[in-house]
Amino acid sequence: MKRARQKLKTHRSLLAAAIRVLGSAGNFSAISLREVTKIAGIVPAAFYRHFNNMDELGVELVDYSFKPLRRMLKEIRQKPYGASRLLVETVDAYLTYVKLHRKFFIFLSRERSGGLPPVRSAIRHELSEIAKELSEDLLKIPRFRNLSEEDVLTIAALVIDTMISSTDLALDLPPGQSAEETTLHLETQRKLRLIFLGAQSWAKLKKPTLE
Amino acid sequence: MKRARQKLKTHRSLLAAAIRVLGSAGNFSAISLREVTKIAGIVPAAFYRHFNNMDELGVELVDYSFKPLRRMLKEIRQKPYGASRLLVETVDAYLTYVKLHRKFFIFLSRERSGGLPPVRSAIRHELSEIAKELSEDLLKIPRFRNLSEEDVLTIAALVIDTMISSTDLALDLPPGQSAEETTLHLETQRKLRLIFLGAQSWAKLKKPTLE
Repeated sequence: MKRARQKLKTHRSLLAAAIRVLGSAGNFSAISLREVTKIAGIVPAAFYRHFNNMDELGVELVDYSFKPLRRMLKEIRQKPYGASRLLVETVDAYLTYVKLHRKFFIFLSRERSGGLPPVRSAIRHELSEIAKELSEDLLKIPRFRNLSEEDVLTIAALVIDTMISSTDLALDLPPGQSAEETTLHLETQRKLRLIFLGAQSWAKLKKPTLE
Repeated sequence: MKRARQKLKTHRSLLAAAIRVLGSAGNFSAISLREVTKIAGIVPAAFYRHFNNMDELGVELVDYSFKPLRRMLKEIRQKPYGASRLLVETVDAYLTYVKLHRKFFIFLSRERSGGLPPVRSAIRHELSEIAKELSEDLLKIPRFRNLSEEDVLTIAALVIDTMISSTDLALDLPPGQSAEETTLHLETQRKLRLIFLGAQSWAKLKKPTLE
């Protein structure tokens, strides 16, 4: 039992070490197993008790970054908020989360374009899962009920494009720029409002299709 | 005169060499002046007749990648197309351009998140210029006339977020996937149609503001 706990602890410290090394190295493909194990305080050979290779660690890091985020986003959508409040709360909660987990999002942002193929495809997978979860929740909203699943997936994809763009802008802001942060929150909310206005008027058309 | 022409030729061959080295190296910050001059067929010291450092070459590469694109996009918008045709033609022309200049867009996509600061800010600058040019043209359209400049900039920013997302998806497609390419063109057009539906219903509101 104690051994299992120790193994989990080392496993987590490898993930934390990778994030730390990434902070200075830049790209995930540029960091070495040796550096990561050194910071985690284990011998290089012990790495293989946890991962078969660095790719696998990268993929787990993606999972580790997204899991609490997906849960958080789903929880906000289950609150009894009206559409307008829901939008504001989601943007604020998300951008605050990005700020608190800056290193993870720098990792995700860099790896999304041009990282190792398995890491990149893990990120794409997580993003498409978020899109699916969002579109399932959108289909439950009465005024979107006559839209097709494909249409609602397009709306969800647009929302995610917007959030990715705001994430990149947030990561570019130096810490302590609270006026710029507020502007970014408001601009993100304006963009989402425009998307949902579009979705609404699309749902009102006689033949609700984007073809 | 002949010397000036030779200088321009060498200048261009340095840009071309950088793009070639990038294809194998990945990140711009990872490539060396020595490699670039070797491929361009000049001695390393001669590099300084053209650029003060690699940062400067990177910034010029950004300019070199965007200039024909901005001209092309503006030209399409000056054609006597209706809104619907304009949207289809723009998406098709843009994604075809990305496909033809794949290496340049891989460079832009990687450097946009996590590249050298001067290169990254050159890319942000070009994107905001495209947004400005687009919003100026949108303000000329009668049904958007009662929107504020800020509102129209938000619409333009959303269009650009969408195009960036589609660019990343296009770069991920292996060559020769024509069915997937068609799907991507159609999905991009659907997204833009939704944005413009949103913009239209926003312009119809009594107080057209996204606040």
